Amino acid sequence: MIFTSDNASPAHPRVMEAMQRANEGFAMPYGADPIMENVTARIREIFEAPEAAVYLVATGTTANVLSLACLVEPWQTIYCHEAAHIQMDECGAPEFYTGGAKLVLLDGDDAKFTPDTLRRAIETTPQGFVHSVQRGAVSLTNASEAGAVYSPAEVAAISEVAKAFDLPLHMDGARFANALVASGASPAEMTWKAGVDVLSFGGTKNGLIGVEAVVLFDPNRAWEFELRRKRGGHLFSKHRYLSAQMEAYLDGDLWLEMARAANRAAGRLSKGILTIPGASLVHPTQANAVFASWPRGGHRRAQQAGAAYYFWPDMNATLDGPDEEMISARLVCSWCTGDEDIDRFLDLISG
Amino acid sequence: MIFTSDNASPAHPRVMEAMQRANEGFAMPYGADPIMENVTARIREIFEAPEAAVYLVATGTTANVLSLACLVEPWQTIYCHEAAHIQMDECGAPEFYTGGAKLVLLDGDDAKFTPDTLRRAIETTPQGFVHSVQRGAVSLTNASEAGAVYSPAEVAAISEVAKAFDLPLHMDGARFANALVASGASPAEMTWKAGVDVLSFGGTKNGLIGVEAVVLFDPNRAWEFELRRKRGGHLFSKHRYLSAQMEAYLDGDLWLEMARAANRAAGRLSKGILTIPGASLVHPTQANAVFASWPRGGHRRAQQAGAAYYFWPDMNATLDGPDEEMISARLVCSWCTGDEDIDRFLDLISG
Amino acid sequence: MIFTSDNASPAHPRVMEAMQRANEGFAMPYGADPIMENVTARIREIFEAPEAAVYLVATGTTANVLSLACLVEPWQTIYCHEAAHIQMDECGAPEFYTGGAKLVLLDGDDAKFTPDTLRRAIETTPQGFVHSVQRGAVSLTNASEAGAVYSPAEVAAISEVAKAFDLPLHMDGARFANALVASGASPAEMTWKAGVDVLSFGGTKNGLIGVEAVVLFDPNRAWEFELRRKRGGHLFSKHRYLSAQMEAYLDGDLWLEMARAANRAAGRLSKGILTIPGASLVHPTQANAVFASWPRGGHRRAQQAGAAYYFWPDMNATLDGPDEEMISARLVCSWCTGDEDIDRFLDLISG
Amino acid sequence: MIFTSDNASPAHPRVMEAMQRANEGFAMPYGADPIMENVTARIREIFEAPEAAVYLVATGTTANVLSLACLVEPWQTIYCHEAAHIQMDECGAPEFYTGGAKLVLLDGDDAKFTPDTLRRAIETTPQGFVHSVQRGAVSLTNASEAGAVYSPAEVAAISEVAKAFDLPLHMDGARFANALVASGASPAEMTWKAGVDVLSFGGTKNGLIGVEAVVLFDPNRAWEFELRRKRGGHLFSKHRYLSAQMEAYLDGDLWLEMARAANRAAGRLSKGILTIPGASLVHPTQANAVFASWPRGGHRRAQQAGAAYYFWPDMNATLDGPDEEMISARLVCSWCTGDEDIDRFLDLISG
Repeated sequence: MIFTSDNASPAHPRVMEAMQRANEGFAMPYGADPIMENVTARIREIFEAPEAAVYLVATGTTANVLSLACLVEPWQTIYCHEAAHIQMDECGAPEFYTGGAKLVLLDGDDAKFTPDTLRRAIETTPQGFVHSVQRGAVSLTNASEAGAVYSPAEVAAISEVAKAFDLPLHMDGARFANALVASGASPAEMTWKAGVDVLSFGGTKNGLIGVEAVVLFDPNRAWEFELRRKRGGHLFSKHRYLSAQMEAYLDGDLWLEMARAANRAAGRLSKGILTIPGASLVHPTQANAVFASWPRGGHRRAQQAGAAYYFWPDMNATLDGPDEEMISARLVCSWCTGDEDIDRFLDLISG
Repeated sequence: MIFTSDNASPAHPRVMEAMQRANEGFAMPYGADPIMENVTARIREIFEAPEAAVYLVATGTTANVLSLACLVEPWQTIYCHEAAHIQMDECGAPEFYTGGAKLVLLDGDDAKFTPDTLRRAIETTPQGFVHSVQRGAVSLTNASEAGAVYSPAEVAAISEVAKAFDLPLHMDGARFANALVASGASPAEMTWKAGVDVLSFGGTKNGLIGVEAVVLFDPNRAWEFELRRKRGGHLFSKHRYLSAQMEAYLDGDLWLEMARAANRAAGRLSKGILTIPGASLVHPTQANAVFASWPRGGHRRAQQAGAAYYFWPDMNATLDGPDEEMISARLVCSWCTGDEDIDRFLDLISG
Repeated sequence: MIFTSDNASPAHPRVMEAMQRANEGFAMPYGADPIMENVTARIREIFEAPEAAVYLVATGTTANVLSLACLVEPWQTIYCHEAAHIQMDECGAPEFYTGGAKLVLLDGDDAKFTPDTLRRAIETTPQGFVHSVQRGAVSLTNASEAGAVYSPAEVAAISEVAKAFDLPLHMDGARFANALVASGASPAEMTWKAGVDVLSFGGTKNGLIGVEAVVLFDPNRAWEFELRRKRGGHLFSKHRYLSAQMEAYLDGDLWLEMARAANRAAGRLSKGILTIPGASLVHPTQANAVFASWPRGGHRRAQQAGAAYYFWPDMNATLDGPDEEMISARLVCSWCTGDEDIDRFLDLISG
Repeated sequence: MIFTSDNASPAHPRVMEAMQRANEGFAMPYGADPIMENVTARIREIFEAPEAAVYLVATGTTANVLSLACLVEPWQTIYCHEAAHIQMDECGAPEFYTGGAKLVLLDGDDAKFTPDTLRRAIETTPQGFVHSVQRGAVSLTNASEAGAVYSPAEVAAISEVAKAFDLPLHMDGARFANALVASGASPAEMTWKAGVDVLSFGGTKNGLIGVEAVVLFDPNRAWEFELRRKRGGHLFSKHRYLSAQMEAYLDGDLWLEMARAANRAAGRLSKGILTIPGASLVHPTQANAVFASWPRGGHRRAQQAGAAYYFWPDMNATLDGPDEEMISARLVCSWCTGDEDIDRFLDLISG
C-alpha cells in the first residue's frame, strides 16, 4: 500500500534483464554504444520523426532543464503552471541551467493552464522593452502535476498561442506514457503534430531505474544540447546502461503496457474512494494519480495498517482530529501497484 | 584487446547482482533508501571518518564540480594541473557549477604538480587585490591523468602549502582505488590525514555501472552540497540503484580487488612493452594505465588484429609511415583486462 | 511639463559645481579618493551607523542587485512586491547577479506588501526541503513603485516577519529621500532601527547625474560586496566623480531639500487634479509621483500642448475615444518641477 | 609627478564644459537623448562604418565583458594574452558575463601575441569534441598592457588566423587612441578593415570622466548587447551625461589630441631615462606608458620628492637595498602630463 510516488516502485524485470544483457564485454562510452543507435531509431519511429535528435539523461529535472536551456536566453521567460515541477520541485535548476531565466507562473485548474491564460501572460511581458525580461518559451506538463491530461487538441491550442508569438513549446513528459495512453493519441499526435518542439520523455517514473529521453524534434539544437549535457555532468561514460533501459522500455511497447497498468490502478482506486460517503475527488483521475479527500478515520486506519502516501495539498494535515473531517491526499500508482493492495486500502479507508 | 579506457569495461557481476537485489518492492526515493544508510556507515568506517558526509552521484564530472562549487566562490581560483580532468575533459563544467571560478593551471611531470609549483602559483595570485580573482581551492588528481600516483606524503606536502594559505584541498579520485592500492596506504592516510577536505571517490571506472561518492570530511558543507546536487539535476529519485552499486563495491573490498587486478594488468603490459627494442615509457606505470611508445609496425599489427586504444598525446598520429618510427599511446586496463588479451597484444606489437 | 520620470530631470547646479571642483589634478582611483572618505563618514553620521560599509555605484539596478547578491544564495528566494523594480524593470538583473535566485512575488495595494502577505509567502516556501528553492531575503521598495511610502513602523513590522525566519531585509531606496521626507522619520529610524540590513540609497532620481550608495549596516559583507562590484564592472577608476556627486548631495542636506521640492510638486499636482470633475487618484500621493485618472479630453489638450507622461498602468491607452472617458496616468515630479509647469498642466487638463 | 596610471588624471576642461551644457532641462533617459544620436553618427563617420551599432558604458571592464559575452557561448574559449586586462584585472568579470567561458592564455613579448601562437592555441582546443570547451573568440589589447602597439598589419594577421577558424575578433581598446596615433593608421584601418568585429573604444583613460564606447561593426548583435547591458546594470537613466562626454571627446579630434600629448610625454620620459647609465627599457615605448629600469638610488630620490608610480612587474620591489641595483617600474602618462613634471622627474632619477 505504497502510494507515495511512482518513483518508489522498482524497475520492471525486463529492464533488469536488459541491464544484464548490456553488461557483456567492452562498449564504446558516452553514447557511442550500439544499443543507443537502436534507441534513437526506435524513438524516431515511434514518434514518426525521422529527423529528431534523441538523448538520454538520468533524471527528470535534467531532461527538463537541459531542454529549456536550449530554448531560452538568460534574459527570457519560461511560461509554466504555478504547480509545475520546474517551478516547485527542482530547487531552481531551470534558473541555474538557463543562466537566470524567469519563470512566469500561470494558474489553472488541475495544474493545467489554458491558451487564454497563456496569451494574457505573454502579452503582459512587454515586447522589445529593454527593461523587462523578454518572451521566451512555454512549458507544459503532461500528465500534469495534478494527474490531469492535456489532449492533443489542448496541446495544439496552447501551441497555437505560443507560435503566434514565435515561442517554442516544451513538454515535461515525466509521465508522458500515462498521458498518452489516457488520451488514446499517438506519440506524434501528442507532440510535434500538436506543436511541441522538445519533449522530456520520461521513463523513471514508469518502470525504469533512471532514464529519461529528450527528443528534439528540430535537430538544429542537437550540438548545443550535447554540450550542455556534458557541461552539466550528465553525459554518462558507461552510457550503454542508459541505452539498455530505454531499449527495454520501448521493446514490445512495454512502456505503454506499464502506463496502462498504472492508470488502471489509479482508476480502480479512484472509483473505490468515491463510494465512501463524503469522499470526493480534488482533481479528476485521468492518469496514474488520485487526488481525493475522505474522512480522517479512514486515513487513520489505512496509515496504521502501513499505507504510505502524502496529505495533499496540505502536507501538514494530521491524523489528530475528528474522524469525520475530510482530509485530502495524493495517491500515486505505478506499473506494479497490485489490485490486492488497492482493494485492501479501499477496505481500510471505507471503514 | 580493448585499452581505450577503463570506462569501456562492463560492471562486475557482483554489482549486477546487487542491482537485482535492490529491485525488490518499494523504496523511499532521493537517498532515503536503507541501502544508503549502510553505504554511508561503511564509507565512514573505511575512511575512519565518523563525521564525514557522504553523497552519491552518477558521473565523475559531477562529483568533481559539485565538490569544487562547495569550496570556492565564483571570483576565486582553482589550482590544478594543466592536464587535469576538470580542465581538459569537462567542457567547462567547473566554471558552470562554480559560477565562473578561474582554473589556474600548473605544470609538472606525469600530470602531477609539486608543492613548489603550487606555492608559486598561489603567491602569484594577489592577495586582497580587488581587481584580481582571489585565491580559492586546490585540486589534485590521484591517480593522475598520466597514470602516476601521489603518495600520502606527496599529498600532505601539497596540503601543507594549501593550508598555509588557508585554501581547501580537493582530490579527484576517479581512480582513487588504483592510486590507493598502488601506494599501499589506507584510505584515511591518503585523504584527510594528508589534508584532503573533499574526495571524489570514483567507482565508475573501476567496475561500477555509474556511481561516484563524494566524501566531505568536514560535514559543514553537507546541506549546501545537497542543494547543489539537486539544483544540478543530480539527485536520483530511484537512488537505491546508486546505493546498491556502491554497497557491492565496498563489500568484501571488491573495489580494492578490482583496482589491484587493473593495476596488475597494466604492470604486465608495461613490462612486456619494455622488452621491445626501442620501446620506452612516456610516464611511469604506477596505476592502471600505460603510456608508452613503440615502433609503428607494432601498432599496425595490433590494430589490424582489432586492438583498440588511443595514440597519445598526439591523437592524430597515424599508421602511415615508416615501421620503425616510435609512436606513443595510452593503454588503460580495468578490473577485467585478461592476461590472454595482454599477452596476445604484446605478441602483436613485438612482431 | 515633463512628468515622464524623475530621471528625465537634470542634475542640481551644486552637483555640477562639485564635479568641477573634483576635476583638479590627480586622484587615486577606484574609491581611494579623499572625497570618498568624507562621503563614508557623512553617510555613517547621517544614518547614525558608525560601522556601516558604504559603496557607490552608478545605477539603481546595480545598487539593488549587488546588495541582493550579497544576501542570498543562488538557490534561495527573494520576496518582493510583484510591481517591484527588481521584478519589472531590471531585465532579470537580480537573477543574473545572484546566480539564479527566484523572485517570489507578493501582491498588495499601492505596490506595498503587508507583513501577513510576506509571512504567508515565506511559510509557503518549504523549509529544509531539498526539492524546493530555499527561503532567502526580503526586498521592499520605499517609496514604492506606486508612489506610496512605508512608515518606519510598517518597515519594522515587515522586518519582524523576516527576522522571525532569520531572513535579511533589503530596502530599494531609489526614492529613499522622497520616502524619508514624506514620513518625517530620521534615516536611522527608516532603516536599521526598523530592521533594514542593506539599503540602496538613491541619488540619481533625486538630482544627481548618476550615483547610488549602498549602505551595508552589517559590514561583514563588505569585502564580498567589493568583489561583486568589481566583477560586475561597476568599480569606477575615476571614482572621485561619483564621490563628488554624493558629497554635494549630502552637503547642507541638499538631498532632503530636493526631495521636499519634488514631493511638494506632486502634492500640488495631485490636489489640482482632484478638483477636476470625475478625476480620482489610483494611488495616494505620498511622495513625488501622482497616479490619477481624469477625462481623455484633458489628456488630449495637455499632450497637444507638449506635456509628456505615461498612461498607467495601461501604457497602450490612447487619445482616440470619447472625451469624457477616464484614463489613468503616472506623473512624476522631481526637484526641479516648477509650479508654473504644474499650474499650466492643471489648466490644460481641467479644460 | 604622478605616473601611477592614466586613470589618475582629471577630465579635459572641454569634457567638463560639455557636461555642463548637457545639464539643461529635461532629456529622454536610457540612451534616447539627442546627444547620443550625434555620438552614434560621429563614431560611424570616424570609423567609416555606417552600419555599426554604438553603445556607451562607464567602465572599461564593462565594455570588454559585454562585448565578449555577445561573442562567445558559456562553453567556449576566449584566446587572449596572459597579461590581458580581462585576465589580470577584472576579477573574473569575463567568466561572470559569459556564463563561464574559459580564457586560454597566450604568451608573447610586450603583452602582444603572434598569429602563430594564436594558431597553435586554437589548434590545441579540440574541434567538435564534446568533452572539451569549444573554440570561441579572440581578444587582443591595443595598446597592450605593456605599452606596445599592434600595427594594422599585425591585427590583420591575427584576424586572418581567427577567421580561418571562423572565430570573431575583439579588440580591447581602453587605450585605442594611444595605439592609433602611434600607428598613424585610420580608425577603420585599425579595426574592421583589419578584421576586428567588436571594439572596446576607450575614453576614460584618455581624458574623460568615465565613458567607453562599444562599437559592434556587425550590428546583428545589437539587441543582445542592449539586453546584456541592461541586465548587467550598465544602462544609465541619465544617459545624456555619457553622451556628452563622448561627444566632446570626438569633437575637433580632442581624443587624438589628448592621445598624442600622452604619447609624446611618454616618449620624452623614455628618452630621458635611457640617458641614465645602466638604465634600460623593459618594453619598447610605443604609446603612453614607459616600462624601464634604472638604479634604486634614482627611485629613492624621486619617490622622496613625491613621485608616484608602481614598481613593475615586481610590485613588491623596495627602496631598501644598494643604490646601484636596477629596479624596473611602470610610468604612465596622460593627456595632461606636463613637461616640467617629466623633466623634474628625470632630474631626480638621474641623480
